[in-house]
Amino acid sequence: MPNAIDVITAKRDGRRLSDDQIDWVLAAYTRGEVADEQMAALAMAILLNGMDADEIARWTQAMIDSGDVLALADVGRPLVDKHSTGGVGDKITLPLAPLVAACGAAVPQLSGRGLGHTGGTLDKLESIPGWRAALSLEEIAAQLSDVGAVICATTPTLAPADRKLYALRDVTGTVESIPLIASSIMSKKIAEGTGGLVLDVKVGSGAFMKTEPLARELAETMVRIGGAHGLATTAVLTDMSVPLGRAVGNALEVAESVEVLRGGGPADVVELTVALAREMLALAGITGVDPAQVLSSGAAYPVWEQMIAAQDGDPSAPLPAATHVEPVLAERSGVLSRVDAMAVGMAAWRLGAGRARKEDAVQAAAGVLLLAGPGDEVEAGQPLLELHTDTPDAVPGARAALADGLVVSDEPAARGTLLLDTIRTR
Amino acid sequence: MPNAIDVITAKRDGRRLSDDQIDWVLAAYTRGEVADEQMAALAMAILLNGMDADEIARWTQAMIDSGDVLALADVGRPLVDKHSTGGVGDKITLPLAPLVAACGAAVPQLSGRGLGHTGGTLDKLESIPGWRAALSLEEIAAQLSDVGAVICATTPTLAPADRKLYALRDVTGTVESIPLIASSIMSKKIAEGTGGLVLDVKVGSGAFMKTEPLARELAETMVRIGGAHGLATTAVLTDMSVPLGRAVGNALEVAESVEVLRGGGPADVVELTVALAREMLALAGITGVDPAQVLSSGAAYPVWEQMIAAQDGDPSAPLPAATHVEPVLAERSGVLSRVDAMAVGMAAWRLGAGRARKEDAVQAAAGVLLLAGPGDEVEAGQPLLELHTDTPDAVPGARAALADGLVVSDEPAARGTLLLDTIRTR
Repeated sequence: MPNAIDVITAKRDGRRLSDDQIDWVLAAYTRGEVADEQMAALAMAILLNGMDADEIARWTQAMIDSGDVLALADVGRPLVDKHSTGGVGDKITLPLAPLVAACGAAVPQLSGRGLGHTGGTLDKLESIPGWRAALSLEEIAAQLSDVGAVICATTPTLAPADRKLYALRDVTGTVESIPLIASSIMSKKIAEGTGGLVLDVKVGSGAFMKTEPLARELAETMVRIGGAHGLATTAVLTDMSVPLGRAVGNALEVAESVEVLRGGGPADVVELTVALAREMLALAGITGVDPAQVLSSGAAYPVWEQMIAAQDGDPSAPLPAATHVEPVLAERSGVLSRVDAMAVGMAAWRLGAGRARKEDAVQAAAGVLLLAGPGDEVEAGQPLLELHTDTPDAVPGARAALADGLVVSDEPAARGTLLLDTIRTR
Repeated sequence: MPNAIDVITAKRDGRRLSDDQIDWVLAAYTRGEVADEQMAALAMAILLNGMDADEIARWTQAMIDSGDVLALADVGRPLVDKHSTGGVGDKITLPLAPLVAACGAAVPQLSGRGLGHTGGTLDKLESIPGWRAALSLEEIAAQLSDVGAVICATTPTLAPADRKLYALRDVTGTVESIPLIASSIMSKKIAEGTGGLVLDVKVGSGAFMKTEPLARELAETMVRIGGAHGLATTAVLTDMSVPLGRAVGNALEVAESVEVLRGGGPADVVELTVALAREMLALAGITGVDPAQVLSSGAAYPVWEQMIAAQDGDPSAPLPAATHVEPVLAERSGVLSRVDAMAVGMAAWRLGAGRARKEDAVQAAAGVLLLAGPGDEVEAGQPLLELHTDTPDAVPGARAALADGLVVSDEPAARGTLLLDTIRTR
């Protein structure tokens, strides 16, 4: 029988883990027989010495096997899901799920909360009065069948090994391992039972992956895991050097998502929502419907209302507003040449939109609202953005975070390409 | 202020740890503010990415600073200590401490218990009726002054960071790191306050370091730490491919040590005891006395008697004898060409001389007594060694452990050199 020290030293010394070793160590860790300090040493050895494609596929399977596999296939529509690696102002799930449902698919979006400078989808929706994140498996299945879209908290029995390992990696400096990131994401999506998966892998200052080669490696690793498990998977590499849209923060992003669902909203949010919808519909086998037309017509908005109401939210209730709003002004005239995603994300986080520790609460109304975008001509003294918060003491910290992130210059600046590449299951 | 994740990720990413980071992480770990899983991830990163000489010196100092420094300098004799990295049949401390004391120095030998195939010095002495390992600091100082030699358990306040880290490394596959091994040994010896230190670094199948380059690296690292802390340190590389002497096991090794102290005993035990005594006396500045002559005259034996009696042991009491003794016979005639140290160590361990887990007890009388040595001519059916145990069920396992470790062939075989090299503080 394998034992923890043999597994750790095998990976430490650069050897492949056997299937038996992988199955045993994840099952024993879930049961508490392998201690946190042993798994931490193994995670560091994996981070530094890597895992090959077969090891990653088996590791993913062992995480799936640590819990239940959801039986959602029987909802009467093709199931297709989307996952984003996280970015600043990335509210795309909010308009996308109702849009794809409006086009005939079912979208089971089991999500998490945010940590650090990128917001969590559940945190955003919880700014809607009455809305609740926790659903039973029966509620999820019924809502998928009736509405076609559900965004809710992941269930506790789904890949418990991943839940435990993720919390451990968070405190042991072992987050930044592509095999561990890819298997964590894919184990939950495969266990959820989706029929197709579109991955939005973000690249740039506001993303987890700062460079395109790293983002591409992560995307290819996840697409390969999908292939090994018979899950049709498409990864889209997208730019995250500037925030998506104009709103960064929980209620602010919900409001912008509603604009998009009503046929308006910022062009980049619309572009990415439509692009991801096209990939999802392709995987779902749904043809002959144009998501761009559905979105611009406002036909997805009623699905949004049903989706929110099904989870006890009031889609027509006013969203929380911050008690304190103040502008950041342009110091000179010229072209707004740089709006750095990480700087804006950190500012929103400091204003109260995000959390530093898992047990922290977030402010529903806090965040940053951009009033000008990259490439816009601005005048000295013109407001470039608004800071929203219920805790005005946080404003100096938010201004400091923005310091080098907002640049007005004499150079004309063009926004780069949003959609960088697409990687599909072979 | 440093935090655990910054320290872990710095080493993970191949960077030097700053003095502040090292000081903080070891102090916070000792206080329990850095969790075991965080230290395990850091230990794995150190094992895989290394530490440079300055980091190792600082790490050692921070481990010393986690506890008390003993004030033993005032015992009226020059203090000099010895440490062995551990080998099969390595009872050298037992004759060495009284011998060096008989020559005029004081030897404060704070020791540990054994784990695995090498025996612990305290386990060996505890086979003497009445003898106790735990002494107060006052008892240690008085005994050093009166007798000149003390072998006892290390005190709980000496380098507590090392104690905690050693137990963690033992279960997380992070033992085999030269920076961590070297700093663990040296922190305890420096905190003990010795004036000089001789290290017996063993090489070969029965040693922790299997190859000479690894043993040399460990020796050089420890000598360099000694130099950085103003402790005159000499490392001797010695062969551990065959057991030292004829006796392997607790009471068996005490009996052999007494033979040596009375002027007899196996030539290799005498050779190594005298060689280490010479190095210790040189560091203590004691000249004009020949330890070979002192040992062969039996003049060190009264110091042994005083040392044992001072710790409530009865040096004249009979040692425990095993209830079950059986021989292993030569299967053919020829030359005993191989007596493998690891095989003999494992056999003794299975017979009950060692422990598998820290909480296990050891058998005082169990072990292996060699009746022939490498290079001896033997006849078919002649006993090559005796197995001693109180648990005869263990005999088949011990025989299996010896299987490939005892070889009789037609080739003449010469025992290799015992003393391989000496490395001194520059």
